[in-house]
Parts: sequence; C-alpha cells; structure tokens
Amino acid sequence: MSSRDARQIKLTKRPKGPISADSFELISRPAPEASTGQVVIRNHYLSLDPYMRSALNNADNLGKPIEGRVVGQIMASRHPGFREGDWVFAMGRWEEISLVEGAAARHVDINIAPASAYLGVLGFTGLTAWSGLRHYGGLREGETLFVSAASGAVGSIAGQIGKIGGMRVAGCAGTDAKVAWLTEELGFDAAFNHRTASDITESVARACPEGIDIDYENVGGEVFDAVFRNMRLGGRIVVCGAISQYEREPSPCVPNIADFIGKRLTMRGFSVRDHAAEINDYIDEAAGWLRDGKLKYRETIVAGIENAPAAFARLFSGDNFGKLVIHMP
Amino acid sequence: MSSRDARQIKLTKRPKGPISADSFELISRPAPEASTGQVVIRNHYLSLDPYMRSALNNADNLGKPIEGRVVGQIMASRHPGFREGDWVFAMGRWEEISLVEGAAARHVDINIAPASAYLGVLGFTGLTAWSGLRHYGGLREGETLFVSAASGAVGSIAGQIGKIGGMRVAGCAGTDAKVAWLTEELGFDAAFNHRTASDITESVARACPEGIDIDYENVGGEVFDAVFRNMRLGGRIVVCGAISQYEREPSPCVPNIADFIGKRLTMRGFSVRDHAAEINDYIDEAAGWLRDGKLKYRETIVAGIENAPAAFARLFSGDNFGKLVIHMP
Repeated sequence: MSSRDARQIKLTKRPKGPISADSFELISRPAPEASTGQVVIRNHYLSLDPYMRSALNNADNLGKPIEGRVVGQIMASRHPGFREGDWVFAMGRWEEISLVEGAAARHVDINIAPASAYLGVLGFTGLTAWSGLRHYGGLREGETLFVSAASGAVGSIAGQIGKIGGMRVAGCAGTDAKVAWLTEELGFDAAFNHRTASDITESVARACPEGIDIDYENVGGEVFDAVFRNMRLGGRIVVCGAISQYEREPSPCVPNIADFIGKRLTMRGFSVRDHAAEINDYIDEAAGWLRDGKLKYRETIVAGIENAPAAFARLFSGDNFGKLVIHMP
Repeated sequence: MSSRDARQIKLTKRPKGPISADSFELISRPAPEASTGQVVIRNHYLSLDPYMRSALNNADNLGKPIEGRVVGQIMASRHPGFREGDWVFAMGRWEEISLVEGAAARHVDINIAPASAYLGVLGFTGLTAWSGLRHYGGLREGETLFVSAASGAVGSIAGQIGKIGGMRVAGCAGTDAKVAWLTEELGFDAAFNHRTASDITESVARACPEGIDIDYENVGGEVFDAVFRNMRLGGRIVVCGAISQYEREPSPCVPNIADFIGKRLTMRGFSVRDHAAEINDYIDEAAGWLRDGKLKYRETIVAGIENAPAAFARLFSGDNFGKLVIHMP
C-alpha cells in the first residue's frame, strides 16, 4: 500500500435523479502527509449510507471526494494519542488513505467485533437506531413499533432494540427475502413486502392490529402515508430518513394535520450527528447485546474503492441487503 | 325566563362542506329538573369555536343539541357546592338552559372580568393558547413565534403570550382590518393578509426574516405549507387547529419529511381537553395580564340562540372577528 499512490473517488457532477457512474471520477494521488496533530489512516472499510445522497447535491462538494466514515489503521501519526498500526474510526472520505485531525479519530477494539462492525452495528448506524428511539421515540414495553426499510442497516437494529425493550415490532421491506429475514432471523412479530402489497395501509393495519405507537421512519412517500394512517393516540413519529424522497423533487404538500390533533401525534426529525458524543455508551450496550446473541446484523461488503459509486446506487434501487461497506484490501 | 320554555338548537343533518341552516332545528322544551348532584344553569353565554365542526360530522350527535361551553347562573341546584344565582362555567349545549352534573361546573368571578370572558380570554380559548405554548412550544425569549389565524380567539392570545414572553411575534389573518388590529393594538411585530398575498411563503419570510422557531398552527393547508418552508433549525410546530381543512376532504398526502431531519423539526398536535385541570392556574396568570393591560381581546357577541348556526358558519368563512359568543338575554 505504502509503495503505491492512494486512490480517491471525486464528485464531478451533481446527479439528477438516480446515481450513475458519470458523476464520479477515480483518481490517484500521493499519500498525504500529517502535520502536527494529524494522523494518516490507511482505510480498510468505508461506510456507504443513504444520508450521503444529499452531499452529492451540494455544489460545494464538486471536485472533492465525498465525506464518509472509515475504519482503518494508522499509517503515520503526529498526534500523541495514536501510533502506527492502531485501529481507528474517523470521518474520512471516499478514498483509500485519509488525512484527519487526531482529535477527530477514535480507537476501535477489534477484539470485540470485526473492524467493519464499527461502521455498522457498533458504529453510527447502530447509534442512529439507538439514539432515535431513546431520545425521540419514548420506547415503552408492550407498545407497538413500526420500522420502514426494516431490513436496512439502521432499521434492522431499530427493530431489534424494540424487541429487546419488550415492544411488539413490525416492519416492511422491499423483497420477500428481506421480509423472511426480519421475521425468521431478527424476531420481528410481523413484516410485509411493501413493493408487492396491493394496499400498503391495509398491510400496515394487519401487521399492527392495535395501531402504531412509534413509527421509526426511514422511507417517506406512500409508505409513510400508510403508516401515518395507522398511528395510535399519543403516537410518536421518529423521522430518521426518507429514502424514497432523495432522488426526486419532494412533494411540497402537507399532511392531514388535523390528525395530529385528534391523535396527539408527535413527529420529530433528528440526526445522529447531534448524538455523536454518545457513541461509547452505545457501543458498551450494543457489545453486550451482540455477545448475548440479541442483536444480529448483516453486511454487504464490496471490494475496491472504484466500486463505491455503483454500490452506493444500489442503496436507492433497493438491491442492497444489509449494511453496505467498501473493503479496501 | 323561568316562565317560558327553554330553547335548544338540535343537529338534524350532518353538514357536507359549508354549514347551512338546514342542518339545525330550533325547538322548545320545558326547562329540565335537577336530580341529586345536578344543577340547572340559565345560560347567559354560549361559546362557539372551530373545534365544534367535527362534532357536526359525528352521527352520534344527530337529534341532539351539540355540546358547547356556557357561562350562566344557577337556576336550581341539587349539588351542595352551588346556590341559585351563582355564576358558573360548564360544558353545556347549544341551548338556553343546561342540566349538568354539579361536579362538572365551576364558579366564575365576574368581578375580575365580564362573564363572557370566561368563555374566551379567561376560558378554554385562552387556556388553549397558553397550554399549547407552555407544554409543546418551548417558548424562549428572543425567538420568533408565528401564529396563523392570528386575529382569531386563540391566535390573538397566543401571539400576546409570545410577546409577554419576550418573543418576536408575527402572524397572518384574512382581512386588512384584522392585520391592522394585530400590529396596531396587540403589538405583533409583523402581520400580513394571507388572502391577498401573492406568495404566502414570501410573505411569511418577510414577516420572519430569521425564520420561525415556533409555529402556533391554527389553519393548515397552503398557509401551513408556507409556514413550514420558513421553519428554522430546531423549530417546533404546535398544531392547535386546521380550520382550512374542516369543511373539505383533507389531503391524504405527506409533508416533505426530509425537512424534519435537516431542520430537526418537532410537530405536535394537542387538545386543550388534556389540560382542563390547569384552568385555574391559567386564569390566575391571565387575570394579572388583563389588569396590567398586557392582554387584549375582542368579542363578537350575537344575541339569541336561534342565531347560533349562522354565527357558527361565519367562523369558517372568515367573516367573524374576535371571540364568538352567543348571548341569551
């Protein structure tokens, strides 16, 4: 690695609608050098997540590699907290080698879980599920949690945290294989395929016969509309994502806000960025769940930074299954 | 009064769309008699409020007078807490004489304010404004409050409570006279006429140049849509009403929920019914504001129970100005 240049994927064009390869360029550059306080990381894994879609729309990012969370080993350190070979997590970029401030990097313990897990089940993916339910969901034993995109990286953890908390958990996903994974492997009480459902509102009602107390929302659009109609008195809608809306002009219209009054609904959008300081608390708790077999996860690992754009596009087409990471061997 | 029968307005037909007289019937009946624990109230005032519109849609109410809050004097009491002549507030009906459980009636002090005020500024109208901001708004000095239907009975109090709390307050109303009242009499920092605005989103932006921290929502529809686009990071949408939606089939579509994430928005529907126990706390505080001239109000008093349907219809056409009460002389 150190003998060759390091590769990056640069954003060259803001994609309109579905992502295609012509918005990106693969380039090579000499490995960067650390100034005082900085570290150079040889990235082993790069996290690809739906939230990144909005960064592609930002003109400020043209000509640069998009930001992305990475796990890797320190190649060079000018920060007293890190030594060559240390395994770390950091906000890097779509690149094989990242230069970051040491203060913004964090050690990870690969004896607890494989390094890639620190981008998913023990990373911000898991923290997203956990902090959303914890701070905005008001998780209560015996209530019903609905998760859209429930087989997704965040959704699958949110659902399992609901089960650990004693909730009835239902969800939807876009293939029968994903639905089977939810009910057969993850312990969801009910799940359905929203792509083949003839009436999504009816399918949600069947999956949640007593209505929904918490909607952990990842999808938006018609799936959210169907979920909204099934909310119960006092229901909480935790808005984590709206993946169905990211590749098109979102509708400017408004919900049936009278339902908010009648059902005393609360809808709250949040970002895991506001909860970054809680990552170690989350890892402590989730590591225990992993050890006890209460928390399962699935990864799709794609080799080679050059394949990041095509892999990323699969997040929006519904073809990806499990937490998506790029491996840089 | 005691020498003649008492009149009632019964609901005979569920109105579709705008309210017309043929949904109601005026009848006379002998004054009711109290059983143990009950009181008979000779109603002086009946409150007419937008929330009642949904009661007209409820088939269970056909053939009965609609529920409504009243202020009047005890005619007969079989409850130890009340004597003939006492001034009381109660949930009565659209009628001249109401029979209610004494436990559900409450004395009012007409030395503090005129009796009609206990249906408005010192009643559930005021409590609606106060409890919504207090429990769901997170009112903070220096922030911006936007109130739709700001000249309405609830909106005008919400705006003034915002000013008392040190907020910048803006709002919209449906006539130039109402707009002038907001800025010239009530101390709103900005207001506009949403019926004549060429671009409501632009008008909201001009009225709230730094964006909106709290939206006290009474209207829904395109006004809410415009307000939503002007919400600020961390904004709270307190859904009190959606008057524009009550007389038509509400739209089943969903909001741009991605904005909830980016701006960390909270949207919460509530009903004053959940806060009935706070009425005395509210009256204590609001009576002080009235005395100090910090809280102003305007009433439209229509004489005669027989005029209740036509007066009620004016709430939805925008022709009413101020808190609407029926006076039964």
